[in-house]
Amino acid sequence: MITPAFLTLPERSTKPRTVGLTHVLDKGLTVESARSALVAAAPHIDVWKFGWGTAYLDVGLPEKLELLRAHGVLSCLGGTLLEISWAQGKAQDCLDWAAAVGFDSVEVSRGVAPMSLDDKHHLLRLASQNFVVLSEVGSKDPDQALTAEQWTREVAQDLAAGARWVITEGRESGTVGIYREDGSIREEVVTAAVRGGGVDKIMFEAPRKDQQAWLIRAFGADVNLANIPAEEVVALETLRLGLRADTFDPSRLWQPA
Amino acid sequence: MITPAFLTLPERSTKPRTVGLTHVLDKGLTVESARSALVAAAPHIDVWKFGWGTAYLDVGLPEKLELLRAHGVLSCLGGTLLEISWAQGKAQDCLDWAAAVGFDSVEVSRGVAPMSLDDKHHLLRLASQNFVVLSEVGSKDPDQALTAEQWTREVAQDLAAGARWVITEGRESGTVGIYREDGSIREEVVTAAVRGGGVDKIMFEAPRKDQQAWLIRAFGADVNLANIPAEEVVALETLRLGLRADTFDPSRLWQPA
Amino acid sequence: MITPAFLTLPERSTKPRTVGLTHVLDKGLTVESARSALVAAAPHIDVWKFGWGTAYLDVGLPEKLELLRAHGVLSCLGGTLLEISWAQGKAQDCLDWAAAVGFDSVEVSRGVAPMSLDDKHHLLRLASQNFVVLSEVGSKDPDQALTAEQWTREVAQDLAAGARWVITEGRESGTVGIYREDGSIREEVVTAAVRGGGVDKIMFEAPRKDQQAWLIRAFGADVNLANIPAEEVVALETLRLGLRADTFDPSRLWQPA
Repeated sequence: MITPAFLTLPERSTKPRTVGLTHVLDKGLTVESARSALVAAAPHIDVWKFGWGTAYLDVGLPEKLELLRAHGVLSCLGGTLLEISWAQGKAQDCLDWAAAVGFDSVEVSRGVAPMSLDDKHHLLRLASQNFVVLSEVGSKDPDQALTAEQWTREVAQDLAAGARWVITEGRESGTVGIYREDGSIREEVVTAAVRGGGVDKIMFEAPRKDQQAWLIRAFGADVNLANIPAEEVVALETLRLGLRADTFDPSRLWQPA
Repeated sequence: MITPAFLTLPERSTKPRTVGLTHVLDKGLTVESARSALVAAAPHIDVWKFGWGTAYLDVGLPEKLELLRAHGVLSCLGGTLLEISWAQGKAQDCLDWAAAVGFDSVEVSRGVAPMSLDDKHHLLRLASQNFVVLSEVGSKDPDQALTAEQWTREVAQDLAAGARWVITEGRESGTVGIYREDGSIREEVVTAAVRGGGVDKIMFEAPRKDQQAWLIRAFGADVNLANIPAEEVVALETLRLGLRADTFDPSRLWQPA
Repeated sequence: MITPAFLTLPERSTKPRTVGLTHVLDKGLTVESARSALVAAAPHIDVWKFGWGTAYLDVGLPEKLELLRAHGVLSCLGGTLLEISWAQGKAQDCLDWAAAVGFDSVEVSRGVAPMSLDDKHHLLRLASQNFVVLSEVGSKDPDQALTAEQWTREVAQDLAAGARWVITEGRESGTVGIYREDGSIREEVVTAAVRGGGVDKIMFEAPRKDQQAWLIRAFGADVNLANIPAEEVVALETLRLGLRADTFDPSRLWQPA
């Protein structure tokens, strides 16, 4: 292959990354799809989340976890499964199973179950004994929106309790949490979340292209982005690098000498 | 694989199912995609419909039909192809071809062609000589909506004429038949269809997650759901089992002793 | 396989086509997905565009280009990459790389960079020395819409400058160029574009089914359609042939003798 190198592009972090992470949402991919997505784009994938409770039913789980290890991608259990387990008094069983199966990471959230902040931080500390913890802030229910102050405080507290990164809720649809129902961005919520821990500690769930482009324009190529479908990782990478109309940078225009 | 078993989940039927069926819509999948979808999710797939006229062009048809047989999934010819054949005076040719190729089942509908109810029931009886028949009720044209009484009557008559199940129209888009143009549910139509044959005899076309979740909340984990994309079968199964926020069951909360 | 032949269908061109082309948009497919899409549908695929700047990052590029050659499909570099290269003073480097890697075709557009019509035609003539050129008309920015007269003139001038076909902008989303923001068709723009070169020289970007169906009803089975996802090519072919409700032709009704 003749690797192209004729363009001036923004700086991008490389793996293992601490900033500029891409976090994939697996909604139940087949092993074959996971394998070919990793062959095509592993250098651009940092975290692979088994969305909500899909891991509980995924017959390809062992093979996928092995593929992820081989490609240097952090495997992460979805937060909803841990919430449901917690609600049934089975949080420890869930964590034990995740460890036995070989997950690197778990998401700790309180978007579904009636969990207090104290409960969440207890669970977060428990999980952080054996896993990289990604916490999540924001409800899946548009009627339970947090105030800006609550966003800032919960992000800060989650990090203090042991979260490596904090994910801001957007769901697979991109219509709650930091987004309005039409998918547009609640800028004051984004600002409040960033205030809680710094932009490098936030992973923004951003399933839609317009949301990804907005965040890249606001925070640069190395913003952390989450809930990306596996088959859209290369397209996202072009957005990060200004190789798509939505993030084209007119300041890089060539000027005759 | 360490199969997880720490959660209390709703009862689910198993194959071969008479209720709780999942009916997949194949819009022209490659053989490889079909194969890996079946490896990943065959225990959750009961019927596989080759949508509208795709079977007529599908070069992978023999391989797919063999895969479906091997995985215990009923293969079904799309109703639009039979309607077009009927409109051209070729219904018998279509059925003969479907039998020769090896279809188990055909859909009998009148959503496109100008077919009377009598014509439909004649075709249904003809088809039921050699196939499991899934009939469909509801027009693809939002301007030709049936009344509630018509829904009830047509469902009942289709079952009397030999249909094993009756599919309620929703299209791939989920915007006609039992749905409004915005995808929300016309509850009175759902009720009318159920009145015609009982909920176990109805398969609801439900391509959208919110529609699936509504029907599962209304009728339980074992509602029959149709027009599911192959790559979303595992996600649907998590919805049926309450492993996703949309169908989380707060009544299953653990209480300290 | 028992190839079905019982229906009367509209005439369709065959490869290599000069009309009725289907142009696929590759947004970063894996090699495996490209391979299986070509096995399933190569007779229906004429052009394969590596969308915007994805080719710059596509590690599977050499394998894909070889597959496309083997299946008789024209490989095409996305116009946005050439625009960005031009904006950085690297248009020649981009074309040299595309030739070295083995592209058959390049798209020449001015939807992103501040390129005058003269600049575009200069670039078009440069590119046409070594490539089949597909030019594109229409901005990606809804606020920069061309008048009908500008559409007609730019189409005619692009053809005169060496474009083999002219693509009308619609983006991946189908919401700009010849479409309104809600995806509906600006008929006066379609008419103006056709006036510039004749319908056989226009490729309409038509990512949505309703847009495809409209154009097929307006111009027939052999209208040129662009930006089709690889996995929807068979579905599009059923639309072209009247094998789906949206393009069902009631004039083909059988009449008893």
